[in-house]
Amino acid sequence: MESERFARQLSFILEADKEKNILRQTHLSGHGRAENDAEHAWHMALMIWLLREYANEEIDLARAMMMALIHDIVEIDAGDTYAYDETGKATQKEREEKAADRLFGLLPEDQGAELRALFEEFESFSSPEARFARTMDTFQPLLLNNSNEGSDWIRHGVRRSQIMKRHATTVPGSQEISDYARELIEENIRKGHIIDD
Amino acid sequence: MESERFARQLSFILEADKEKNILRQTHLSGHGRAENDAEHAWHMALMIWLLREYANEEIDLARAMMMALIHDIVEIDAGDTYAYDETGKATQKEREEKAADRLFGLLPEDQGAELRALFEEFESFSSPEARFARTMDTFQPLLLNNSNEGSDWIRHGVRRSQIMKRHATTVPGSQEISDYARELIEENIRKGHIIDD
Repeated sequence: MESERFARQLSFILEADKEKNILRQTHLSGHGRAENDAEHAWHMALMIWLLREYANEEIDLARAMMMALIHDIVEIDAGDTYAYDETGKATQKEREEKAADRLFGLLPEDQGAELRALFEEFESFSSPEARFARTMDTFQPLLLNNSNEGSDWIRHGVRRSQIMKRHATTVPGSQEISDYARELIEENIRKGHIIDD
Repeated sequence: MESERFARQLSFILEADKEKNILRQTHLSGHGRAENDAEHAWHMALMIWLLREYANEEIDLARAMMMALIHDIVEIDAGDTYAYDETGKATQKEREEKAADRLFGLLPEDQGAELRALFEEFESFSSPEARFARTMDTFQPLLLNNSNEGSDWIRHGVRRSQIMKRHATTVPGSQEISDYARELIEENIRKGHIIDD
């Protein structure tokens, strides 16, 4: 064991702990408290394993799971940007790139580059793993929100046009899961949980 | 997509959400709140990827990560049993087996059997993946506790003999990480955070 290398790995691992304090807009099932980024990532990785049979393309499971586990880590510095916050989204890219420099820079060079590449891949949908992980990034909060009678959509006054734009990101990873998600969305529009604009 | 199969998968995925409400005795870094099982599992899976070079044996990353992600899921029914709670540990096995029957039984039969096998493997240290995941199960709270000046050990009056028994479970997965963990423990004994019995 090379001790400086190990120290850098541990420094990143301890810093990552802060992701447990980054709250999302989604609430836990059973009308629970707000979910945090680490919980969301855990749930996504679990879903990648369990639902892999529905991926449009063959995926390397470990890569896809690791991508899910770290995709929100930049929010430790950049904060969570709600999917339907257009003002926040305008500066999101810049804030998150700066955070990625600092956070992945804590790691030994080879691993920092490896994680940075996974993060960029996820952002740009540029591999089968990224596309499937992106499906889960949208499908996981949809499931929770649906289980809570759409309370997060109602609270934010979310409209069909907004949710359909986001829904489009689920298609490249899994047509089957997207089709199902589409049905859930239509059902929530019919029930008035999402505004039909 | 076979709709009954998918419904069973989603039923497990939604039930798993409850793991985010199972609190552990460990506290987040920065003297934070109590950690929950989903966060602990997320952190372990991340560590498995980042620290895989120190595993004693070659491991299948995805299997080891999935094992970490689900190893505490039985606590949804059985509750968390603190590592040094001898009364709780006496009935732990029985409570957890019953929980495993119900929870993994929600899944389609093939996947229920797959996850049950991963869970049993983890419990019995019976594969390289299980051994390495077990190293992380002990090393992750050790890192947090060390970063908090041993506050959880102090609060529970944890003794050297107790922690060394638990420490022994880290050796089969990684001699190098165990050696490092041992140093951290000795340091915390010297500082009076752990009672030297």
